[in-house]
Amino acid sequence: MEALIISADNFEDSELLVPYYRLKEAGVKVTVASLKRGTITGKQGYEVAVDKTIDEVNPDDYAILVLPGGKAPTVVRQEPKALEIATSFFVRNKPVAAICHGPQILISAGLLKGRRATCYMSVTDELKKAGAIYEDQEVVVDANLITSRQPADLPAFMRETMKQLRL
Amino acid sequence: MEALIISADNFEDSELLVPYYRLKEAGVKVTVASLKRGTITGKQGYEVAVDKTIDEVNPDDYAILVLPGGKAPTVVRQEPKALEIATSFFVRNKPVAAICHGPQILISAGLLKGRRATCYMSVTDELKKAGAIYEDQEVVVDANLITSRQPADLPAFMRETMKQLRL
Repeated sequence: MEALIISADNFEDSELLVPYYRLKEAGVKVTVASLKRGTITGKQGYEVAVDKTIDEVNPDDYAILVLPGGKAPTVVRQEPKALEIATSFFVRNKPVAAICHGPQILISAGLLKGRRATCYMSVTDELKKAGAIYEDQEVVVDANLITSRQPADLPAFMRETMKQLRL
Repeated sequence: MEALIISADNFEDSELLVPYYRLKEAGVKVTVASLKRGTITGKQGYEVAVDKTIDEVNPDDYAILVLPGGKAPTVVRQEPKALEIATSFFVRNKPVAAICHGPQILISAGLLKGRRATCYMSVTDELKKAGAIYEDQEVVVDANLITSRQPADLPAFMRETMKQLRL
């Protein structure tokens, strides 16, 4: 099984690293995709190797899409190919796990209308305007969509994510 | 089930946060103990709340001891009560999971003689001098003792840790 994480510089370090290590623990191969190759650096300074540019990604290769937060989604949401990848996961009903500012990418892709979801506190207005049904919960699961608010929610976020993957 | 993490300022952030969130994901209550109450700050700047001072810890309350790395073990290993706690886990054959510089605490407690173990590269000489059988592996399990070398080993480290807890 393979997982895809899409992020960029200034990601929230724990929101990328915790899912990254957790999926690997379960034997999942994890690919990190970003705008360019090399490394991306988190807000706290962790460097993560980029395996593929988003242009090189074929979403059909992956069982799940993970969207960490931080400031990275501000950049990622402006990339049409990133929105296309997210859309592909929704169309095929494959799990998409987004935390904190991660849901902003799904907002830009127009994927949250009528969906139950949560996000970082400062993103809630935007989420509601996009037509989502906002819930202030540590994790909200709506069919293929798993969302959480912040790093402290990572245990619940990963519990539901692993459940969707039947791992 | 309850887990005990002992650390201090300048811990390696991912080596504390990944086990912390992973154990919570599995429903384990996690207590962070340090030299004083308040918060401890990792090398990368993450702040973690201290639940108890090490003097307040009763090791019998916990099923497992986790010792993250970074520069924290340099300080923790000088605390007689920390060494006493580690010894108590060994005497009762309860799991002790130490990564990176974490095994330094077990060296100071004199607990590694004849034990198979690994650690961060720069700690290997000290580990061998303490009588341990050093192995350059992502994770080494010797009865109750689980050791790993570095953050990249966290998936294997957590896989074996959860296995010992039958979670």
